[in-house]
Amino acid sequence: MALENPVYEDLMNGYDQNLDRSGIKGERLAKRLYELSKIGYTQIGGVRRPGLSDEEKEAKELVKQWMAEAGFSIIEDGAGNVIGRLEGKDNAAKAIASGSHLDSVPNGGNFDGPLGVLSALEVAEAWKETGYVPEKPYELIIFTDEEGSRFNSGLTGSRAMAGDITEEEIQQLRDYNGENLEQVLEHYGSSLGAFKKAKRDVSELELFVEVHIEQGKRLEQENQPVGIVSGIAGPAWLELEFTGEAGHAGNTPMIGRKDPLVAAAEFIHGIPDFPAQVSGTSVATIGKMEVFPNGINVIPEKVVLHADIRDIKEETRDKLLQQIKQYAEEVAGRRNVQLAIKQNTKIMPVPIEETLKRKLEESLNGLGIKPVHIPSGAGHDAMVLGRYIPVAMLFVRSKDGISHNPKEWSSLTDCVYGIHALKDFIENAMKD
Amino acid sequence: MALENPVYEDLMNGYDQNLDRSGIKGERLAKRLYELSKIGYTQIGGVRRPGLSDEEKEAKELVKQWMAEAGFSIIEDGAGNVIGRLEGKDNAAKAIASGSHLDSVPNGGNFDGPLGVLSALEVAEAWKETGYVPEKPYELIIFTDEEGSRFNSGLTGSRAMAGDITEEEIQQLRDYNGENLEQVLEHYGSSLGAFKKAKRDVSELELFVEVHIEQGKRLEQENQPVGIVSGIAGPAWLELEFTGEAGHAGNTPMIGRKDPLVAAAEFIHGIPDFPAQVSGTSVATIGKMEVFPNGINVIPEKVVLHADIRDIKEETRDKLLQQIKQYAEEVAGRRNVQLAIKQNTKIMPVPIEETLKRKLEESLNGLGIKPVHIPSGAGHDAMVLGRYIPVAMLFVRSKDGISHNPKEWSSLTDCVYGIHALKDFIENAMKD
Repeated sequence: MALENPVYEDLMNGYDQNLDRSGIKGERLAKRLYELSKIGYTQIGGVRRPGLSDEEKEAKELVKQWMAEAGFSIIEDGAGNVIGRLEGKDNAAKAIASGSHLDSVPNGGNFDGPLGVLSALEVAEAWKETGYVPEKPYELIIFTDEEGSRFNSGLTGSRAMAGDITEEEIQQLRDYNGENLEQVLEHYGSSLGAFKKAKRDVSELELFVEVHIEQGKRLEQENQPVGIVSGIAGPAWLELEFTGEAGHAGNTPMIGRKDPLVAAAEFIHGIPDFPAQVSGTSVATIGKMEVFPNGINVIPEKVVLHADIRDIKEETRDKLLQQIKQYAEEVAGRRNVQLAIKQNTKIMPVPIEETLKRKLEESLNGLGIKPVHIPSGAGHDAMVLGRYIPVAMLFVRSKDGISHNPKEWSSLTDCVYGIHALKDFIENAMKD
Repeated sequence: MALENPVYEDLMNGYDQNLDRSGIKGERLAKRLYELSKIGYTQIGGVRRPGLSDEEKEAKELVKQWMAEAGFSIIEDGAGNVIGRLEGKDNAAKAIASGSHLDSVPNGGNFDGPLGVLSALEVAEAWKETGYVPEKPYELIIFTDEEGSRFNSGLTGSRAMAGDITEEEIQQLRDYNGENLEQVLEHYGSSLGAFKKAKRDVSELELFVEVHIEQGKRLEQENQPVGIVSGIAGPAWLELEFTGEAGHAGNTPMIGRKDPLVAAAEFIHGIPDFPAQVSGTSVATIGKMEVFPNGINVIPEKVVLHADIRDIKEETRDKLLQQIKQYAEEVAGRRNVQLAIKQNTKIMPVPIEETLKRKLEESLNGLGIKPVHIPSGAGHDAMVLGRYIPVAMLFVRSKDGISHNPKEWSSLTDCVYGIHALKDFIENAMKD
């Protein structure tokens, strides 16, 4: 028996009806979030909509219907990205685009992705209700497979559109069934040839703006419904291998031990003090470690740590990276163990233009919201496009900062504040 | 193709022939170590002789032949322990016993176990050559399954003899083939009934003395061939579970994190400073840890550490245990994470009587060896008997401290020094 799904009622409960103005309707958003929550519904209240699955397709088909009713002309590219276009007064102008994704992690929530898609749609619904015709074309884009739960990769749709997926990666991708990309695409109704043609000249877009849940607690702490993304952090991943000398835990005196776990511990323990020395937005985390041979009565021979180091500016991120590497070397030297460091992943942070952040501030000020600037630690489709065109992002407050979890929640009031801010920002951009 | 096995040649190479006196012959020991090295020989130079296996049986049968030739009357109990007895002048007196084991870890070396058995045998060989008749009866005991590689347990033979194996443990034991103890015993040629009858009144023994390789580096550092075991450490195993708050490594600011890995690291890093505060023989090791969920970009939710804490005196071991628990509580409080501590294993250390250690010192002094006292961090059959009767142990220098490994090595000179010390010590004990 499926649990009853109370998304609609819970959203409407306590909604600030005063936000239903300028053509925006909270109830329409609540109904649509509810309709999507039923697609891929898991018995414990979450959703499962992997990229390029039947569930993601069903969700896109439903949203396409709503888009068509709102006046969009719609195409779907060979990667499964849905692109809707509303013509503007000047159709030779570059388009302003907004959107997000409808796929989810294996047991995800109802807001990560759908909120950005439905916010972009609600802007067009509001225009339709009020008879507003934008100056420039407006695009609503639903990117496929943002979360990466299909291939253990991610951002597949936006990277296909930007031309960022190499032939090598295409060959290597395997999904959770062991299928390669070609097989997955064929089951989906596309093909590898069509996938490769999904690459478009993204500079046809003047700007991409994405609404997303915060997935953190800053807005809760600041008591604001919506915040401005100050930049999208690029992660650098280090693998640090400390090698010492194994020995019997009982027969090896403390003096003279070369215990790589003690060295690794000294290193981990020191990490939290580093980020604040380079910037207020940087973070450094050891989330994964392996101990070898990992026996209770054996002094470890080797410990492998995986560090995740991020900042929204490349300069400070790389400074932090250098300091952490140097600190690891110091600890290894002091503890008399060997150290090998591998740089695995190093993704460029995506800055957001100051002028765009000022315009988002104006939109928030107009709504009586104090503009809080928050770095995005996670990657988003906007990050991919941000390497080529100007991007902006708005975060909507997340209850307890929880995401990728059925408990993910943002109040309807907060969501609709986000839509008002998005609409105001886009309308201003249409005028430039 | 098996590699040629150079144990004999390597042992004889550099042997100090001056040690061939009082009936002891280095070459006999070298030949016997070599003969045993061929039983269960692994292609990479080690041996595989699990307890109660065909290989262990073959090794015991071979040693039984030598024992018979040396004048022992021999029985094998239902647990597979071999007990050889040489009558003394006073056969009403309690016997002096020596011995060790012939089973090995899955890819073990040639000294751990066999050296103690063959040393006890060589003492009898020497007596036979010189016509010496001991005052009291002399027993040579080969304990079965000391290493525990059969049942993932250990000390099976000595514990069966002491009556230390509970009915519950008997029911639970499963070997690497999934067989229970009864099935293993039947394949071996014994039975569960006979196994239970292996319990004997160990107080029939006045004293048990075991020669064993050091499995550590103290004697190498002190440049002495043989050392005196100061006590057999009892391990206490703690399981420490630090629980914090998981979060996205990118979206969670450093301030306010409750990272259990940072707390665990602070704890591990502090551990090496504790043992010296309670005694010069205590040790504390974190050999095993698990991080959950162990994802590169996820702040851990939970970290489980396994601590191994040992000393040769219960009082100091337990004091160290208390201090380490208290330190863990302090760190958890400071780092704002939860801590749960479980006491899993807590084995009583076995002290060695001061008078016996003084007598071992006399024997070493007589050989020109500086008496070095070394705690035994590992458990031995002597530890089991030591709960009931006086025990003593001699360690023979181990090359690089390596054991449980094909590289395990002690020079023949060092081994024969051990036999001279053992013989002198036993002969003195015979006179008391």
